[in-house]
Amino acid sequence: MEGGGVDHLAEERQKSRFDVDEMKIVWAGSRHAFEVSDRVARLVASDPAFRKDNRNLLSRKELFKNTLRKAAYAWKRIMELRLTEEEAAKLRFFIDEPAYTDLHWGMFVPAIKGQGTEEQQQKWLPLAYKMQIIGCYAQTELGHGSNVQGLETTATFDPQTDEFIINSPTLTSSKWWPGGLGKVSTHAVAYARLIVNGQDHGVHGFIVQLRSLDDHMPLPGITVGDIGMKFGSGAYNTMDNGVLRFDHVRIPRNQMLMRVLQVTREGKVVQSDVPRQLIYGTMVYVRQTIVSDASSALSRAVCIATRYSAVRRQFGSQKGGPETQVIDYKTQQSRLFPLLASAYAFRFVGEWLKWLYTDVTQRLQANDFSTLPEAHACTAGLKSLTTSATADAIEECRKLCGGHGYLTSSGLPELFAVYIPACTYEGDNTVLLLQVARFLMKTVSQLGSGKQPVGSTAYMSRAEHLMQCRCSAQRVEDWLKPDVVLEAFEARALRMSVACAQNLSKFSNPEEGFAELSADLAEAAIAHCQLIVVSKFVEKLQQDIPGQGVKQQLQTLCFVYSLHLLHKHQGDFLSTGCITPKQASLANEQLRSLYSQVRPNAIALVDAFNYTDHYLGSVLGRYDGNVYPTLYEDAWKDPLNDSVVPDGYHEYLRPVLKQQLRNARL
Amino acid sequence: MEGGGVDHLAEERQKSRFDVDEMKIVWAGSRHAFEVSDRVARLVASDPAFRKDNRNLLSRKELFKNTLRKAAYAWKRIMELRLTEEEAAKLRFFIDEPAYTDLHWGMFVPAIKGQGTEEQQQKWLPLAYKMQIIGCYAQTELGHGSNVQGLETTATFDPQTDEFIINSPTLTSSKWWPGGLGKVSTHAVAYARLIVNGQDHGVHGFIVQLRSLDDHMPLPGITVGDIGMKFGSGAYNTMDNGVLRFDHVRIPRNQMLMRVLQVTREGKVVQSDVPRQLIYGTMVYVRQTIVSDASSALSRAVCIATRYSAVRRQFGSQKGGPETQVIDYKTQQSRLFPLLASAYAFRFVGEWLKWLYTDVTQRLQANDFSTLPEAHACTAGLKSLTTSATADAIEECRKLCGGHGYLTSSGLPELFAVYIPACTYEGDNTVLLLQVARFLMKTVSQLGSGKQPVGSTAYMSRAEHLMQCRCSAQRVEDWLKPDVVLEAFEARALRMSVACAQNLSKFSNPEEGFAELSADLAEAAIAHCQLIVVSKFVEKLQQDIPGQGVKQQLQTLCFVYSLHLLHKHQGDFLSTGCITPKQASLANEQLRSLYSQVRPNAIALVDAFNYTDHYLGSVLGRYDGNVYPTLYEDAWKDPLNDSVVPDGYHEYLRPVLKQQLRNARL
Repeated sequence: MEGGGVDHLAEERQKSRFDVDEMKIVWAGSRHAFEVSDRVARLVASDPAFRKDNRNLLSRKELFKNTLRKAAYAWKRIMELRLTEEEAAKLRFFIDEPAYTDLHWGMFVPAIKGQGTEEQQQKWLPLAYKMQIIGCYAQTELGHGSNVQGLETTATFDPQTDEFIINSPTLTSSKWWPGGLGKVSTHAVAYARLIVNGQDHGVHGFIVQLRSLDDHMPLPGITVGDIGMKFGSGAYNTMDNGVLRFDHVRIPRNQMLMRVLQVTREGKVVQSDVPRQLIYGTMVYVRQTIVSDASSALSRAVCIATRYSAVRRQFGSQKGGPETQVIDYKTQQSRLFPLLASAYAFRFVGEWLKWLYTDVTQRLQANDFSTLPEAHACTAGLKSLTTSATADAIEECRKLCGGHGYLTSSGLPELFAVYIPACTYEGDNTVLLLQVARFLMKTVSQLGSGKQPVGSTAYMSRAEHLMQCRCSAQRVEDWLKPDVVLEAFEARALRMSVACAQNLSKFSNPEEGFAELSADLAEAAIAHCQLIVVSKFVEKLQQDIPGQGVKQQLQTLCFVYSLHLLHKHQGDFLSTGCITPKQASLANEQLRSLYSQVRPNAIALVDAFNYTDHYLGSVLGRYDGNVYPTLYEDAWKDPLNDSVVPDGYHEYLRPVLKQQLRNARL
Repeated sequence: MEGGGVDHLAEERQKSRFDVDEMKIVWAGSRHAFEVSDRVARLVASDPAFRKDNRNLLSRKELFKNTLRKAAYAWKRIMELRLTEEEAAKLRFFIDEPAYTDLHWGMFVPAIKGQGTEEQQQKWLPLAYKMQIIGCYAQTELGHGSNVQGLETTATFDPQTDEFIINSPTLTSSKWWPGGLGKVSTHAVAYARLIVNGQDHGVHGFIVQLRSLDDHMPLPGITVGDIGMKFGSGAYNTMDNGVLRFDHVRIPRNQMLMRVLQVTREGKVVQSDVPRQLIYGTMVYVRQTIVSDASSALSRAVCIATRYSAVRRQFGSQKGGPETQVIDYKTQQSRLFPLLASAYAFRFVGEWLKWLYTDVTQRLQANDFSTLPEAHACTAGLKSLTTSATADAIEECRKLCGGHGYLTSSGLPELFAVYIPACTYEGDNTVLLLQVARFLMKTVSQLGSGKQPVGSTAYMSRAEHLMQCRCSAQRVEDWLKPDVVLEAFEARALRMSVACAQNLSKFSNPEEGFAELSADLAEAAIAHCQLIVVSKFVEKLQQDIPGQGVKQQLQTLCFVYSLHLLHKHQGDFLSTGCITPKQASLANEQLRSLYSQVRPNAIALVDAFNYTDHYLGSVLGRYDGNVYPTLYEDAWKDPLNDSVVPDGYHEYLRPVLKQQLRNARL
């Protein structure tokens, strides 16, 4: 995507056997999506105001101030260029720096949309849309993360004044973590236990103003600040994750978000006719975007590692010739190519989740809740699976770059540090797997009851067959049959669920059993979620995909993804008798030969992500492969190189070398 | 180990069923080692000069200068207190900040000792011991890491002047990465191709002065600097990893390290009678210390995660009572306790490696090279295994702390960032596994030739039995028999090696086969190395271990370590027919019940590491468990909280809120 200069990877690009431009469309999702993305990416990359290569040299304060500048400038450009909502979102995406705007647009606005009444939306949304107020989403507390129902903040209705009194009764009830809260937000959707007439009605959302719109000072009763440094040198330190305490802060009654539950002037608590399940719809939406972000982060890391693996050479020199490109080593391929395949797999399952969200929304509007539990389990599981895999994969890509991956200029430390919170926020990944497991146990228990499993659990209706089928693979080529692969994954997932259900039934107290077997249950949930990803990849390939060689490449990647999972989780497949050791060995052989097919196309397959060098932010991942001269040039820019003799030489080094420490002041 | 204040973990400490003080001795290795360690740790912790909690707030320059100060102060204290070598090393360990002294003492001095002649040692070592010169170890180059034989720097003998001309012929030949090189070292042991009479004699070490001892300026022909920022905010950024170029730098002939190979005045290249294998002895030494460091880093992460898991509560509240401690969840236990067991396992295998190094050294002195290849493979493999496992484990511990693990004040981001280079330096972990695999293939090929496998491969002499034996476990309790466990690991390791050997034999070109099957070979090497760790743990338990309940705890941990590996690598055990699915399931059941046995002892088992709060450097891992008030207090110290209204408000926030962006300067 970059121009000018010599292309050190040109030879690699000529090796590929498919139409990269068409693959770019597939990756983007549509020609329109590609064009928007491409245009906005170039816009950001070409504007020096969005420079980001100096981030790790800034102090916390400078870093944060710089982010405020970028956010304001971006907002200015969005208005000047009259960008659409889609374009504006892409702009923020390519600026690639966590900022309060993420929470304002991604959580505050949706919370009001989803949980506010019509009147509340009419009052607050126009202010938020113009950024006349800036909001955050204040849920998590110092002592309470995953368990929302355990939140301690209270909102007590005062019938005298028609107000709620928001209060933080304990230290652990302090709001802690919300992004944009610490220094920026003027408002928050804050979650608190609704107390009316001394009765606790559970946790609900309230719009609370935190700071004066005149001078940005915190309002009376509000204590607010930043929670301090986080992982990495840049990363999330551009964000003011905040701490917030309420000392009996009063807000008007109509600032409780009342779409689902209302408190009347008289202090009556009334359920509205809007179904409570609506909030699950929002969760499906948010988690769907997280899966899509996983494929972005993963593809970025893979792009860097793949390009540098083609640039870097180690060993294998013949008679003084160049050494072997590390991408030609099978050990490198067996670690890298499954991650490349995963990036595509997560992209497609993310696309499907977008469809699922639309489907769920339409059904909810028609008061059809039948698919909701399944859709909810599905997105929870996929959020867990894809974010855990992506976090591990970024670090693996860093290792695949050898020592140089440890330099911040490789871009990978920053990518890792900024990505890993995804494993914890919006549902801790282990907690989510157990939710999926609970749903699976329920589904298994209803088999044969006449209630048909739907959606991603539909395969369970073939339980009788799947519990006893034997894999038909007899030759290496048989592992290229989608049906053979799919059935093995279905049988494994079902048998693991059924085994858990059987073990559970031995406990007299089901909850005790669930707790005791939770590690096994989590593994069963993973098996189910991996099946979903595999099956959605297979489904994608049943579509018409234009472009010379494009579909064939995707087929190869689909099998790389599936068979590497099969190898990695061999124990599951073997212990449940889904495949034999011989078949496992054939699958592994097939996998090796698939790697050889990926090899010549690897560079083109990462070019298809269409990332600018600005967005990648990596010397190792440069489009033109001109790595070493750039690393060398960049080194001299470190402040330590401002002087040849370092600061501190006279005080702390010379006395050591000259044996004059005794009198030195240290 | 800390005094004063309330102990929130007191109840946990009372639960334990063994003598913690005796366990501390076991962990330290001896009563003497414990006493030294304990004394020096307190010395460092109580001296404000060694404060480290402000590290992530310093700019690169401040950070580096601060490290220079600490190193000088430490050296001053070492002399004032007349510390022994052992105590001085411990002091540097507990200061816990990478510094040039690590390389001076850990690489520069040993290189001269190992590769210098008697005369060279007499000349250079006294200078180094007094730090009148400071040295580093300049091997790696910009384009060459793992493949030492591919280095490009040249040292050409000039018979006219009796000198070597050291030169960097290409950009990629620039020395790159050596710690202590960039800003501090006055000297380096630099590795270069020895060229005499136009003939290339391979890579050798040369002592090169880099900087003037008068004013610290680089000498003519020397270009030297820092390579820039690395992973994390503090971490290895305290170290001046350097870049170095030689422009025909001349050094006297006697600065080539000539213990093994000599160049005479006349330009003759003469092999000395000192065996070349000596360098493998040094590698065994260095890698042995890396294994020992792995257990330190891992135990530190585990200590933090275990204590915070006992402090933190989520879900499970009954009737408004406190929520459940997360350490009581089986999912938490199944992730955390295997890491706790690994810390102990790595500690003991590290201890054994120390013995192995002594043994090898004594044999070398007696010209006995018979065990060297085995010892070399063993240390290479264990370096790879333990560092990879530790890097992953630190990140896993961070995740086990939930969101708060992401704060730098948890100590885990820093620990991760500072630890991960261990996977790459002193042999990339994948490259090392393939070296082990090569050794295993050789050993397998010699089975039946009459040559008996020695040391850690001795089990292979029972190949006939191990290839066909069947695991005898029939009940859950059978998995507590050391012989049953050991045999399963031996059979698995051997069968995987033999399967690789058989597959290799199908290739007409063995090197091609090795390349093609390298991923499988690496897995076989891992199986072999895991067996070593398990068997050394079992051997440890055959010793007399005093202290009430101590041995029993270690037994439990030994089985946790073994059975969790068995579960994780179930696929290996099943596909090679070493155990049946039923037996795998019994092992897993045993593992669950072992977790329950670990649970009440968990806090005491991490207390046994005897870490001070200073060394741990973690709010979450505080000895007294007083986590939340400390987190809250610490937050306000962030520079962003210097003012309630942040820097940048007037320029970048107010114009947004007030719709005045059009005219704003951004």
